[in-house]
Amino acid sequence: MDFAFYTPSTLTSEEADRLDRVHGALTAATRALADAQLRTQVELDEAEAVTAEVERLTERLLTRAQEGSLGTELGPRENEIRNQGNAVLGLRNPFAAFSEERRTIDDEGRVVYDVELGALYEGPPGLVHGGVSAMLLDQLLGEATARAGGPGMTGRLTVHYRRPTPLGKLRFRGWSESIQGRKSIAKGDVLDPDGNVTVEAEGLFILPSWALEHPSWTDRKSSFE
Amino acid sequence: MDFAFYTPSTLTSEEADRLDRVHGALTAATRALADAQLRTQVELDEAEAVTAEVERLTERLLTRAQEGSLGTELGPRENEIRNQGNAVLGLRNPFAAFSEERRTIDDEGRVVYDVELGALYEGPPGLVHGGVSAMLLDQLLGEATARAGGPGMTGRLTVHYRRPTPLGKLRFRGWSESIQGRKSIAKGDVLDPDGNVTVEAEGLFILPSWALEHPSWTDRKSSFE
Repeated sequence: MDFAFYTPSTLTSEEADRLDRVHGALTAATRALADAQLRTQVELDEAEAVTAEVERLTERLLTRAQEGSLGTELGPRENEIRNQGNAVLGLRNPFAAFSEERRTIDDEGRVVYDVELGALYEGPPGLVHGGVSAMLLDQLLGEATARAGGPGMTGRLTVHYRRPTPLGKLRFRGWSESIQGRKSIAKGDVLDPDGNVTVEAEGLFILPSWALEHPSWTDRKSSFE
Repeated sequence: MDFAFYTPSTLTSEEADRLDRVHGALTAATRALADAQLRTQVELDEAEAVTAEVERLTERLLTRAQEGSLGTELGPRENEIRNQGNAVLGLRNPFAAFSEERRTIDDEGRVVYDVELGALYEGPPGLVHGGVSAMLLDQLLGEATARAGGPGMTGRLTVHYRRPTPLGKLRFRGWSESIQGRKSIAKGDVLDPDGNVTVEAEGLFILPSWALEHPSWTDRKSSFE
């Protein structure tokens, strides 16, 4: 992981614990609401009444809110990166399908996320949207290469769809294949409950020139050039 | 577009209009709530109180709800495909970044979606998650090839990240490049507000053998073989 891009959080560990517990619960509740509103068949009057309630809650939350996106901070806890808005992994993002709590490292050193993708992730009827698989694999391959010490920006992502990916429980696996200077390659796949590989992906990760110009990289440039 | 996979809706046009208006408003409200809960800085007591309210609304919506995902139906209106759960384009999916209302066809026949991606779509600080761009391009390229008469399942998606994609207003463009029997190729890109191409993608679309075995394809097999 490269921490140089990120500003340190001013939170204490205790404050971070409490914030994360409360915000994690709010995010989980919002995710459940999103799923329910997608599938609901209540009378339209009731749907309209709920809509008005949702709008009121939004107003309450916006009485004090950050402008723009959350960005990324270094947290107070060991090796903690607080990218809580991240679209795939963020603790505060109800769209995020991955959760750090469900991440493991398997016997071969692969990064593994076990997920359950429901109705919100559908593409073809009953199947995971191909774009969702691509999105999750992009995050996973970037993490796998970063853990192995490789640079972390995706340069190219190639996704092969081998067979349909059913909604439900799935396993995403990612691993670093090679690292050479400013470039690295990571691979990954998706397994359905029967252990079939439904999707495979390869990512080329690079340290782009615009990132090299960032002050935080100045000292490390030589090791990537 | 191939309609053969989908079951016809039993709705009348009037019922569909009313449903879509009410459900569209509920979805928009949920999307706004998701954005607000990501960025809120209200006191934690208030965040907890809102969480409890959100949970109550979810319960109300689940008193009557479809089991599983929404799937896809043929709608009562002309050429209408009701894939309202679709993760990228679904009218009832609060995660969906594309909206059919914001789709245009440009002078060169490209399918264009103008979007505004906010804090919910973040990857690196201030930037669109690379996986989000990949996800949206997968949907767009599939649509472009389907409009041109090509088969619609992604076989391979390759995404090239040319420069950082800032959060905010963006233009996604997709077009059919070639169609040959059971295979077709579509391309697309992402433009930032200055007109720079930040991401390019190429998709290979195929009619997979498992789809060929589907009864609805039996009559059309010969035209793809």
